[in-house]
Amino acid sequence: MKGVIVKEPGGPEQLTMTELPKPETEKDDLLIKVNMAAVNRTDIISREGKAGYASNPILGVEVAGTVAEADSSHSFAVGDRVMGLVNGGGYAEYAAMPASRAMKIPESLSFAEAAAIPEVFLTAYQTLFWIGKLQENDTVMIHAGASGVGTAAIQLAKQLTGAKVITTAGSERKLRFCAELGADVTINYKEQPFDKAVLDATDQQGADLILDFIGASYWEKNLACINMDGRWVLIGTLGGSELKNVDLMNLMSKRIQLTGTLLTPRSDAYKAALSKEFSDKVTPYFERGIIRPVLDSTFPAEQVDEAHLHMEANRNIGKIILNMESDDI
Amino acid sequence: MKGVIVKEPGGPEQLTMTELPKPETEKDDLLIKVNMAAVNRTDIISREGKAGYASNPILGVEVAGTVAEADSSHSFAVGDRVMGLVNGGGYAEYAAMPASRAMKIPESLSFAEAAAIPEVFLTAYQTLFWIGKLQENDTVMIHAGASGVGTAAIQLAKQLTGAKVITTAGSERKLRFCAELGADVTINYKEQPFDKAVLDATDQQGADLILDFIGASYWEKNLACINMDGRWVLIGTLGGSELKNVDLMNLMSKRIQLTGTLLTPRSDAYKAALSKEFSDKVTPYFERGIIRPVLDSTFPAEQVDEAHLHMEANRNIGKIILNMESDDI
Repeated sequence: MKGVIVKEPGGPEQLTMTELPKPETEKDDLLIKVNMAAVNRTDIISREGKAGYASNPILGVEVAGTVAEADSSHSFAVGDRVMGLVNGGGYAEYAAMPASRAMKIPESLSFAEAAAIPEVFLTAYQTLFWIGKLQENDTVMIHAGASGVGTAAIQLAKQLTGAKVITTAGSERKLRFCAELGADVTINYKEQPFDKAVLDATDQQGADLILDFIGASYWEKNLACINMDGRWVLIGTLGGSELKNVDLMNLMSKRIQLTGTLLTPRSDAYKAALSKEFSDKVTPYFERGIIRPVLDSTFPAEQVDEAHLHMEANRNIGKIILNMESDDI
Repeated sequence: MKGVIVKEPGGPEQLTMTELPKPETEKDDLLIKVNMAAVNRTDIISREGKAGYASNPILGVEVAGTVAEADSSHSFAVGDRVMGLVNGGGYAEYAAMPASRAMKIPESLSFAEAAAIPEVFLTAYQTLFWIGKLQENDTVMIHAGASGVGTAAIQLAKQLTGAKVITTAGSERKLRFCAELGADVTINYKEQPFDKAVLDATDQQGADLILDFIGASYWEKNLACINMDGRWVLIGTLGGSELKNVDLMNLMSKRIQLTGTLLTPRSDAYKAALSKEFSDKVTPYFERGIIRPVLDSTFPAEQVDEAHLHMEANRNIGKIILNMESDDI
């Protein structure tokens, strides 16, 4: 089969499609004929050789496709349409997926839409509810609202809890889109200091929960606009990770809970439990079209380098998809 | 009545005992005839004018004494022996205490022992269980094991969960005492790097929970010896609060939950709920002598300056008590 690997750690030019053996499945794995894979930041970090935890030489942590081989003891049959996280190996014609984390694709969705769901919706669900304990009357601040996780988080927060959603983005086009998804307050961080805007939107109380993909460059402003007893979930460091001056007293006096998290390196059991709860709770919203995966663009698999460049330029609204069944593979 | 106030923000010499009106009680308050008050770090911070949240000019956040006036709607009667947190005003002959947070003094305990309980045991209980979510099979790292909160936390962790308890202190005398209270592993931080000792004691896994009173000076070592998914509760900054270099990636890759907390500025409702749960769960352990308050020394109230100096010198094991009924007042 064809699959995308990295020649040497480095830029998108290091990505190459090559002939590889089909993945070997272990007991409790499904073999998936991949229709669509999706691009994630974690793939870029792996490509650069900085991830540390990626053991599969083939990139890609999520796919949508059909079951090609299934252990009879599982609830999936050959031919079922499924989506889910894989332990690497997503950018390929076939991928092995633990059956425990496979999710049935809602009937109303295409493979491309389904491939846009697992990583960002599971990350958003995990950070909003499992880690962030979002409650009905909370205000949540979602940075990078037009990103993959951002668009998922806005919808989940709004539809599952009715919390007040504040989001930042860097263009009017992105902010309009966030508002359409349900964001109550949208802030163009290039035009005004977002901390002041958050305080103004919350009676000077601040946000109860912050989803932070940015890290260092937003540190001071996040501190300034988080509420007492606020939860601050750190899931990315697009704005750098190194802080020069931190006063721990600020964390104490506001009683802040700061939690770092990454989804990809978590255990199989964690991913299975998260996938099951998410699928049970959110599938009805997909079926009724109330929550929707957000697709930016679909690239044929052989243009995977273009797809990575597109993500690194921050030009996308929503997910970038790789078509693993395009004619040229 | 007599009470201790601060002339000007500064050192212990600024403490002065003076004649003041009895506190006015509000609805739902008890008036307590104070027998013993206890000294806390927060009193020193207030004395230095750095607390910000202390509105009562009289220092002191916890007392043990007898009920002098009780609203008939409450479950306490005049003459009952009670202990608990007050909103300032503890270093005095009389103090007002919200009835919702008053705790009956276990029969086997003296007033001095009772005054040694509320602040440190409630802080330890809150940080171990409410914030730190300590579980049966966890390893907990308790810094400053011979301090007030340290001695309470060692006993609560050991008796209520059976978790493995690792503690640090700076002298063999203190370490022996921690071991007597139940600590499984004791580390003299002056003689060896505690992070390596923690890793060696946990199969190189690290501690699942850290109670950190130290802050900046222990930051790197705490990071090095906390386990994946570890909880890190920051409740003091005896080693400074300013960090020069923090790499947020470390919080993400270990998925650390770092929570800052302070007990004194929390709401009445919070203190009431915490006091009630603690009293219900832990009183039987006090009654049976399985858990015990740890007294370092008792000073007559007019030697309050000596009591503060004693705490600031870190010479104490356990609590420093002020006798508010000594003859010279």
